[in-house]
Amino acid sequence: MSRKQPIYEGKAKVLYEGTEPGTIIQYFKDDATAFNAQKRGTIAGKGVLNNMITEFVMTRLAEIGIPTHFIRRINMREQLCKKCEIVPIEVVVRNIVAGSMAKRLGLEEGERLPRPIVEFYYKDDALGDPLVSDEHILALGWASAEELEEIVGMTLRVNDYLCGLMRGIGIKLVDFKLEFGRVWESDFMHLVLADEFSPDNCRLWDAVTNEKMDKDRFRRDLGGVEEAYQEVARRLGVLPESADIESLNKDK
Amino acid sequence: MSRKQPIYEGKAKVLYEGTEPGTIIQYFKDDATAFNAQKRGTIAGKGVLNNMITEFVMTRLAEIGIPTHFIRRINMREQLCKKCEIVPIEVVVRNIVAGSMAKRLGLEEGERLPRPIVEFYYKDDALGDPLVSDEHILALGWASAEELEEIVGMTLRVNDYLCGLMRGIGIKLVDFKLEFGRVWESDFMHLVLADEFSPDNCRLWDAVTNEKMDKDRFRRDLGGVEEAYQEVARRLGVLPESADIESLNKDK
Ligand SMILES: Nc1ncnc2c1ncn2[C@@H]1O[C@H](COP(=O)(O)OP(=O)(O)O)[C@@H](O)[C@H]1O
Ligand SMILES: Nc1ncnc2c1ncn2[C@@H]1O[C@H](COP(=O)(O)OP(=O)(O)O)[C@@H](O)[C@H]1O
Ligand SMILES: [Mg+2]
Ligand SMILES: [Mg+2]
Repeated sequence: MSRKQPIYEGKAKVLYEGTEPGTIIQYFKDDATAFNAQKRGTIAGKGVLNNMITEFVMTRLAEIGIPTHFIRRINMREQLCKKCEIVPIEVVVRNIVAGSMAKRLGLEEGERLPRPIVEFYYKDDALGDPLVSDEHILALGWASAEELEEIVGMTLRVNDYLCGLMRGIGIKLVDFKLEFGRVWESDFMHLVLADEFSPDNCRLWDAVTNEKMDKDRFRRDLGGVEEAYQEVARRLGVLPESADIESLNKDK
Repeated sequence: MSRKQPIYEGKAKVLYEGTEPGTIIQYFKDDATAFNAQKRGTIAGKGVLNNMITEFVMTRLAEIGIPTHFIRRINMREQLCKKCEIVPIEVVVRNIVAGSMAKRLGLEEGERLPRPIVEFYYKDDALGDPLVSDEHILALGWASAEELEEIVGMTLRVNDYLCGLMRGIGIKLVDFKLEFGRVWESDFMHLVLADEFSPDNCRLWDAVTNEKMDKDRFRRDLGGVEEAYQEVARRLGVLPESADIESLNKDK
C-alpha cells in the first residue's frame, strides 16, 4: 500500500497524489459493486489483474496514437497516471445488445447492432449515472462541441482496435465504458483517455461459446468470477505468476 | 480446379465467372512474384492459406460493418465474391516505416510513424504501380471526391481493427495494401473492400522478436517462407489440417 493520503476513494480504485507534479497513482482494489453499489462484494486478485490489463490496453492504444493518462505501472496494484480533470461523462460503446440496452429498448440480448452505438451517461453516482444526449452535454456545459467530437472520434477508434484485439484472442467485445480527462501542458489543453479498461467496465463473450468473461458473472451470480478475469489476462498474455497473486491476496 | 473459363489471370489469383449472376470466383495460386514480377517463384500451400486468411479477415471486417465483396469460401483454393468494378487505386496504409517508404524518404526501417499514413498507387503493372496523390486521382477521374473520402474512412477503420487483431496474436501490422470496387445493387452504387488480405499484401512482424512473417521472406530470400504463412494462419486459428495442404499440393 502507498504511504500517501488518498485523495479519492472510489468503488474500484483509490487515487493517491503521484510522486511527480501533475500525476496521480491509481490503486486497484478487489472490491466489486454492481447496480449502482446496491450489490457489493470482493473478487480475489481482481485489482492485480485489472492493473495489468489496463496497463496492456493503454500501452497498445498509445501505440496507435490514442493519447492516454497512463504513464507506467508501479507495482502489482498501482499505476502512475497524468492527473486530469475528468469530463463528467461516461462514454459507452455497444457492438452487441446486452444489459440495460436490451431492457430499455426491448431488444434481444446478443443481437449484433448494425453499427456501433455511442451512448453518454452523466457521471453522478447519486443520480445513478443517467443516460444523456449531446444536447444535454452541450447545453449544460459538461463538454464543448469540439471536445465531444474529439471524444467520439477517439472512442470509435478505440472500439475498432479493441474489437480486433479481443477477436484475436477469441473474445467478442460486446460493449465497454470509457472516461476522458483534460490535461494542461504549457498552456494548451488536450484530452486523454483516463480511468481504466478492464472486465469491470466491459462485456467480453467467448467468441465460440458466448460464455461471459466479465463483471456480469458477479452481477448475475454466475460463479467463476475470478477465473474469468484470470482467463482474460491469460489470453492477453499479461497474467502474472499465480504465486504473485496468491501472496498479494494474503498480505492485503 | 474450376471447370469454367478464366476471365482474368493475375499474378497470385485467377478469376472465374461465378455460379450466380454478378459474382466471380477467386482461385488462389501458389505463384509468388516480387519487384513488379521481375522475381518469380512458388510458395507451396500459399494459395490455400491465403484463401483461408482472406476469408477470416473479410468475415471479421463485415462483422464490424465494413462492406466487402466476399460471399463465401467454396473450397480450399476458391472463394465466391461479388463481381465489382475495381477502383484502379492500390490503397496502402503504413504504421511502421518499411520497404519502399524507408528507401524513398530516407527513413529508418522499423520506425513507428506518428500516425498511420495512407498512400495511393495507380494500379497499372506496365507503369510499375506509381505513387499518386488525391490530386491525380480526382483530376484524372479514377475516383470521385466522395468515393475517395469513403475509401480513406474505411481504410483507417480496417487499419485500427486489424492492428488490434494482429496484436492479439502477437503480431505487429507494419503496412498493407487494399483494393476497393464498385458494386451496383438496384440502381445504387456502393463501394466494397475487394481482392484479398493475406501475407502477400502486408507486412507482419512478430511483436516480440520482430521476425518477418510475410512475403518479405520471399522478396529478400530469408527462407522459411511457407512456415511464415502457416504460422500466421495458425495464430489466426484458420490453419487447415496439414494433411489437407499436402494432398492439395500433390494433386495440383
Ligand atoms: N487521470 C485521472 N485523473 C483524475 N481522476 C481520474 C483519473 N483517472 C480516473 N480518475 C477518476 O478516478 C476515479 C477512479 O476510481 P473508481 O473506483 O473507478 O471510481 P468510481 O467509483 O467513481 O467509478 C474515477 O472517479 C475516475 O473518474
Ligand atoms: N470482386 C472483384 N471483382 C472483380 N475483380 C476483382 C475482384 N476482387 C479482386 N479483383 C481483381 O482481380 C485480380 C486478382 O488477381 P491478382 O493475382 O491479385 O491480380 P494482380 O496480378 O493484378 O494483382 C486483381 O487485379 C484485382 O483487382
Ligand atoms: Mg470507476
Ligand atoms: Mg493482386
